[in-house]
Amino acid sequence: MKLNCDLGESYGAWQMGNDAQIMPLIDQANIACGFHAGDPLIIQHTIILAVTHNVSIGAHPSYPDIQGFGRRSMALSEQELIACFHFQLSALAGMCQVQGATLDYVKPHGALYNDMMREKAIFQTLCKALSQFNDQLPLVIQAIPNNELFIAIAQQYGITLRFEAFADRNYQDNGLLVPRTESNAVLTDPDQISQRVKQLSSTGNLLSINGKPLTLQVDTLCVHGDTNNAIEIVKKLAES
Amino acid sequence: MKLNCDLGESYGAWQMGNDAQIMPLIDQANIACGFHAGDPLIIQHTIILAVTHNVSIGAHPSYPDIQGFGRRSMALSEQELIACFHFQLSALAGMCQVQGATLDYVKPHGALYNDMMREKAIFQTLCKALSQFNDQLPLVIQAIPNNELFIAIAQQYGITLRFEAFADRNYQDNGLLVPRTESNAVLTDPDQISQRVKQLSSTGNLLSINGKPLTLQVDTLCVHGDTNNAIEIVKKLAES
Amino acid sequence: MKLNCDLGESYGAWQMGNDAQIMPLIDQANIACGFHAGDPLIIQHTIILAVTHNVSIGAHPSYPDIQGFGRRSMALSEQELIACFHFQLSALAGMCQVQGATLDYVKPHGALYNDMMREKAIFQTLCKALSQFNDQLPLVIQAIPNNELFIAIAQQYGITLRFEAFADRNYQDNGLLVPRTESNAVLTDPDQISQRVKQLSSTGNLLSINGKPLTLQVDTLCVHGDTNNAIEIVKKLAES
Amino acid sequence: MKLNCDLGESYGAWQMGNDAQIMPLIDQANIACGFHAGDPLIIQHTIILAVTHNVSIGAHPSYPDIQGFGRRSMALSEQELIACFHFQLSALAGMCQVQGATLDYVKPHGALYNDMMREKAIFQTLCKALSQFNDQLPLVIQAIPNNELFIAIAQQYGITLRFEAFADRNYQDNGLLVPRTESNAVLTDPDQISQRVKQLSSTGNLLSINGKPLTLQVDTLCVHGDTNNAIEIVKKLAES
Repeated sequence: MKLNCDLGESYGAWQMGNDAQIMPLIDQANIACGFHAGDPLIIQHTIILAVTHNVSIGAHPSYPDIQGFGRRSMALSEQELIACFHFQLSALAGMCQVQGATLDYVKPHGALYNDMMREKAIFQTLCKALSQFNDQLPLVIQAIPNNELFIAIAQQYGITLRFEAFADRNYQDNGLLVPRTESNAVLTDPDQISQRVKQLSSTGNLLSINGKPLTLQVDTLCVHGDTNNAIEIVKKLAES
Repeated sequence: MKLNCDLGESYGAWQMGNDAQIMPLIDQANIACGFHAGDPLIIQHTIILAVTHNVSIGAHPSYPDIQGFGRRSMALSEQELIACFHFQLSALAGMCQVQGATLDYVKPHGALYNDMMREKAIFQTLCKALSQFNDQLPLVIQAIPNNELFIAIAQQYGITLRFEAFADRNYQDNGLLVPRTESNAVLTDPDQISQRVKQLSSTGNLLSINGKPLTLQVDTLCVHGDTNNAIEIVKKLAES
Repeated sequence: MKLNCDLGESYGAWQMGNDAQIMPLIDQANIACGFHAGDPLIIQHTIILAVTHNVSIGAHPSYPDIQGFGRRSMALSEQELIACFHFQLSALAGMCQVQGATLDYVKPHGALYNDMMREKAIFQTLCKALSQFNDQLPLVIQAIPNNELFIAIAQQYGITLRFEAFADRNYQDNGLLVPRTESNAVLTDPDQISQRVKQLSSTGNLLSINGKPLTLQVDTLCVHGDTNNAIEIVKKLAES
Repeated sequence: MKLNCDLGESYGAWQMGNDAQIMPLIDQANIACGFHAGDPLIIQHTIILAVTHNVSIGAHPSYPDIQGFGRRSMALSEQELIACFHFQLSALAGMCQVQGATLDYVKPHGALYNDMMREKAIFQTLCKALSQFNDQLPLVIQAIPNNELFIAIAQQYGITLRFEAFADRNYQDNGLLVPRTESNAVLTDPDQISQRVKQLSSTGNLLSINGKPLTLQVDTLCVHGDTNNAIEIVKKLAES
């Protein structure tokens, strides 16, 4: 399993995350495309940082909402969503090319990611948009117990899916994440997190918060760079 | 001489220009890249319109200033300017590719265009940025009597220049445009405009407002689509 | 019944509507507050225009979405919505004061208006926000057959409601507007519109598209300034 | 001498500064108005924080440039600048009123501040704009050795000036700050800073970097909250 992280999420004078510390530890950098974070200069710096550490680059497109950091659902029409997707992927792919890098995959951000997982019409629109842009780029979505329908829709558009699990999050029995509004949503003990990942890796199962084994197809683990002991956690996972 | 026009300058619910009427009449469409105008959907529609009418597509990058329509000079650092240039060219080139089109050239917009003509350091920065992106794309700048220094700088970066004259503008004796703040800045009589262009085409000279012949190397004529009799003027020029 | 119109909806270089022509004909100007349209200079000009024609000024606050013209629902938290409301009302009220005018009422815009009519929680949040700002300002909402619940919620916060009908729109039997997606959503015949308004004025009833009389409490009629024969329609209504 | 600090400079998900720690230590909070930082929710929170700690509130208006944090000069017309000033002061004053607070003064931000100090025409425009808004609000500008011309212009518009010195910056012999591009621009030793301020307070002189005494009329000291030992420095100044 690879490690992926959302990076390049600073904006203008505002810093977010510890990109320089995280980048050497991960395999895949999901880089913001300017619609929720990432002005042109930050995108450029983040790409250069990824190239330096030989990290694969993915686009991290969002709803157009800087003020809300892409975390607020927006009722975009299918046409608007497709155009916004094309614009962001184009901008990132071109800026990769300038730095001698390639765009390797796509992972939607924030509210768009959540909406895609919840509403098949939005997922389908993203598959369609991606196939128009470049159907050789895999689309990263959340690993869930029953992913057949997602796979079927993606196949209609010739899109390959990659599935990610969240190393530092607790899961409900139904395979969804424990919402961040609940106190035990996020795991912070590096040892516990490392242990869960090892179990997932060896058995294909992740334990729900009630101890129910969830069978998940997982290609990549999403780690975070902005919490207190984030670096410690990612280092532990990177070593194992 | 070709005809070029700034297009795709609507934004969201706001319309600007008569793109559908102008596009069939011109050779080159300078398409806004989202920094002064042109949201993703409008960019997409404008590219499709250009493809339909077999019109060559240029990027029309700007300072990042939607509210000011890119008409206000902004003191960007060289690094910011380069990154903004790369971002906009990337976005437009990628969205062209999705529609089966190619990006053929670059023409800066508004205050950036004026600043580039006035300050060599900014012109140099744009040449540098373009050479990093794709040195095969010509850069369109204003035709002026003495353009040797611009050519020399562009050559340092391997950039080819194309020169544009303004069909509907009066010129000062020094070869610069009569500022829009003056009453006789803009020409509106289609016959007069057509006559001037014919003279330029046959003699290589454009008469200044005082009747002084200005020797200009002109590859393309910039026409406008948003004035009252714009369509009439462009039709006349397109026919001749 | 008064006439109200959404004005000040230009932005930067982009014009929308015929404010100068409409303003002399109406009683109430709903002025955009910068979140869906209306940069500071346009707000200033629109206030001055309203003052010149002795037109009452209302704030026309929106979701923060210039690119989408406030027409896309956004999942703002209650806290964000309240702060966005306060910010926009403050900006408009202060700019009125500079021009010797007063802010007289509030009418939400676009998707926020629709969401307020559909979701009581959002309506309640807006009442709460308005009462914190100034509970002497009436809130304009859509006139519907059964408005008791809206009145009850507003009263909890000490807010007075004003109800508006749409002069140029067809209504469904349930009192809601025929959606714009249907071909007969908008009325364009000035005589028919004038006739409907007279009937509403004299009988308190507006006929649905199927001829069913809808009993509506109407304080003000919303007219539009951006359609082809808008001025003609508004003139007819203003005279009657 | 009072202590003032730029606060409320977070934006959406991005944090800047240590507002909660700084606020109890200062006398005057310069609060961002949304044009370079400060979305509505952050403005609200910052006002509440100021009220809690009984800190006087000033508006901190900027050029309209979120991406550039208001640090890039922009060529706004006089009309645009006035309207932008009115809009920001209105928004902040209204949001203060909602929280039971008052707006007490105005201090321009970033590039607008620097441009105002360098170009008298811009300073005059700001005085004019402020007098139209509320001529009882003092305008804070930089304390310089010869401030007569500034005072004269301000008096034309009935504006009172307040002068600020920078506690943690080195000064040139001409009374201007050592530019941040130079290594010794910023002082970081709390004792040294405290010593300089005591001297200024008792003698009215601040020593330039070459030891030349600069006679400055100083009403308020600007302190910063975002450097490493900022809190320590401000505590030291607050105690003395």
